[in-house]
Amino acid sequence: MQTSQIILVSHPVGSVKESDLACRTAPVAEPGDGQVLVEVAYLSLDPAIRYWLNAADTYMPGARIGEPVRCFAGGTITTTRHADFPVGTYVTGLLSAQSHIVTDGKGLVRCDLADGSASWHLGVLGMPGMTAYFGLLERARPVAGDTLFVSGAAGTVGTMVGQIAKIHGCRVVGSAGSDEKCAWLVDEMGFDAAFNYKTESPAVALKRLCPAGMNIYFDNVGGDMLDAALLNLARGARVVICGALSQYNEGHYAGPRNYMKLLTARATMNGIIVFDFFEQWQTAARQIAAWLKAGRLKSVEHIESGIARFPAALIDLYAGKHVGKVLVKI
Amino acid sequence: MQTSQIILVSHPVGSVKESDLACRTAPVAEPGDGQVLVEVAYLSLDPAIRYWLNAADTYMPGARIGEPVRCFAGGTITTTRHADFPVGTYVTGLLSAQSHIVTDGKGLVRCDLADGSASWHLGVLGMPGMTAYFGLLERARPVAGDTLFVSGAAGTVGTMVGQIAKIHGCRVVGSAGSDEKCAWLVDEMGFDAAFNYKTESPAVALKRLCPAGMNIYFDNVGGDMLDAALLNLARGARVVICGALSQYNEGHYAGPRNYMKLLTARATMNGIIVFDFFEQWQTAARQIAAWLKAGRLKSVEHIESGIARFPAALIDLYAGKHVGKVLVKI
Repeated sequence: MQTSQIILVSHPVGSVKESDLACRTAPVAEPGDGQVLVEVAYLSLDPAIRYWLNAADTYMPGARIGEPVRCFAGGTITTTRHADFPVGTYVTGLLSAQSHIVTDGKGLVRCDLADGSASWHLGVLGMPGMTAYFGLLERARPVAGDTLFVSGAAGTVGTMVGQIAKIHGCRVVGSAGSDEKCAWLVDEMGFDAAFNYKTESPAVALKRLCPAGMNIYFDNVGGDMLDAALLNLARGARVVICGALSQYNEGHYAGPRNYMKLLTARATMNGIIVFDFFEQWQTAARQIAAWLKAGRLKSVEHIESGIARFPAALIDLYAGKHVGKVLVKI
Repeated sequence: MQTSQIILVSHPVGSVKESDLACRTAPVAEPGDGQVLVEVAYLSLDPAIRYWLNAADTYMPGARIGEPVRCFAGGTITTTRHADFPVGTYVTGLLSAQSHIVTDGKGLVRCDLADGSASWHLGVLGMPGMTAYFGLLERARPVAGDTLFVSGAAGTVGTMVGQIAKIHGCRVVGSAGSDEKCAWLVDEMGFDAAFNYKTESPAVALKRLCPAGMNIYFDNVGGDMLDAALLNLARGARVVICGALSQYNEGHYAGPRNYMKLLTARATMNGIIVFDFFEQWQTAARQIAAWLKAGRLKSVEHIESGIARFPAALIDLYAGKHVGKVLVKI
C-alpha cells in the first residue's frame, strides 16, 4: 500500500514557500501487533505548523527534512491489531500530512461523531477548540463582567475564545486583519467589538474599545499587539500566551517591552499548551458539543480538496485569507 | 522651624547625576489638627528611587521638579495632634528626602524598636525586607527543594530573598557585580552559589549553576539577565518581577525576547508591589524579627552621615559600591 505525503524539503526562512514542501508517495507496511492503519480524511491547518517547521526543539522535537509535515489530522481505522481501536473508529491526532499511516495509537483521540462531524473534530471539537477552552477557562479563569481581548480573533482559536467568553458573561473585543473579518466577528460570532489592526494602531484601538482596560488578553500573535495589550491591562489582568503568529517568520522574537506593566497592573502572564490537558479533552468536547447543539457556539470551516492543496492552503492560512477553521480533505 | 530637603532639579536622563538634585532649606508649619511632625533620623536608599524620579506616572505619580525626592525614611514623632501617633513613636514611610515633615500620618508604619534598630526598620524590617518576604512567599510560593535564582543578590532585597528562601529549604543562586560580592553572598549570606555577571555571561553561568533549571526567578534587574533566566526555567517555574535596575536608566525597556519560554516551561510571570501587602507588614516584621533574633537572618547596612550625602550615596547605590542596605543618617 502507498501513502501520499507532504514532506519538508527545506526549513522555511521567513514565510513558508511552496518550494519548502513537496508531495511524494511512499510505501506503508501492514500494521504489526498493537498497531493500526489510519486512512486519513482531513488534514488540519493550524498556525502552530509554522512553529513546528523550525529546526529547533521546543515542546516538541524540531522538524526534520524529508519527513511528513507535522499537523493534526483525522481519519478512520481501516485495519487494526490494537484492541482499543476497532475498525471504523474515527480518530484524530498528530498524524502529519499524509493519506495513510500506521501507528501504535499513542496520542490518538477516539472521536464520537454524534458530537459533531469528522472535520469539526479537528476544529471546534479538536486541538484549536481545546486550546481555546482550556486556555480561557483554566488559565484566564474568566468571570462575568470581565473584558476580554483576543488577537487573531477570526481564526478557530480566536472565534472559540470569543464565543466561550461570551457564554461566560464577558465583554469580548477582537482584532483581525480586514474590515470584513471585523464585521463578521461582530455580526456572526457575537463579539462586542473588533478592530482591523492593519488600519488602526492597536494602542489606539484598545484605548478606544477597552477604556477601563482589559481583564484578559488572549495572545495569538505577540509582537506589537502584545505590547499594546500590556499597556491596557486592568488591575489583576491575566495574559494568556497561546501563540506568536506575528513572530514565527522572524529570525528572533520581539520581547514585550511593556512587561513591567505586569507589575504595575498586578497582572499575571502564562501560557497554554493544549497537550497538558489531553486527559480532559473528551469531557471538554462533550461540553463544546452541547453548546454547539444549543446554538450557543458556531463552527466555521473552509475546506480545500486534495492533499496536493496542502502547501497552498498553508500559505493562504498565514495570509489570513479565510475565517474559522481551514482544512484539506484528502 | 526649618526642614532640610534634597529636591529634584531636573528629571535624570540616563544615570542620576549630582546636578539633578540639590539641597535646600524650607520652612515647616506647625502640625494642624490630625497632623504630626516627624523628625527624620534615616533616609533609605532603594533602587526604586530612580524609577520614581521619572516624570511619567506609574503605580505612583511621576516626580515633579522642585519637590523633595521620594524615598522611604524613618523618624520620631516630636509634635502630635493625631491620637494614633504619640510623641516618641518611631515611624517609617514615604516621607521623602527631608529632615522634618508635617503629615497626616497616612501610610506611616509604627515601628516596634524591640523588633530591631531604627535603621533596620528601613531595611530588613522595612520596605525592602517586605518586598522580599511577600514577593517570595506570596508570589513565588517556594517549596523545599526548589532552586531559586535572584539577580541583584547583594542588595537588601536580594540578600533577604536568598536568606528567606534558604529558611524555606531552597537551593539559592545569586548574581552580583563583583567577585568580592559573590564570595560574600556564599560565605556570609549562606547562598549556595553566586556568579559575577560582569565577567561571566548569565546564560552560561545559569546553565552551569542551575543544570536542572530554576523553579523560581526573582528579577531585580530585567534586560539580558531576565532573558537568560527565561531560557533556564524548570517546568512550572515562577518568575517574579520586582524591578528592572538594568533598564531604569534607558529611555525604553528591553522586552524579554524569550518570553515564549513561559509557554514551553508552563511558567508564570507576575510582579510584586509591596504596598499591596501594607496591612500585613507588621505581622511579617514580627516573623522577620524572630528570624533575626534566632540568627537565621542577617542584616547588613552601610550608613552615610548627613543629608547632603544623599545624592552621592544614591549614585554609589547604582554603581553597586556597597552590599546590603544603604542609608543616610541625618
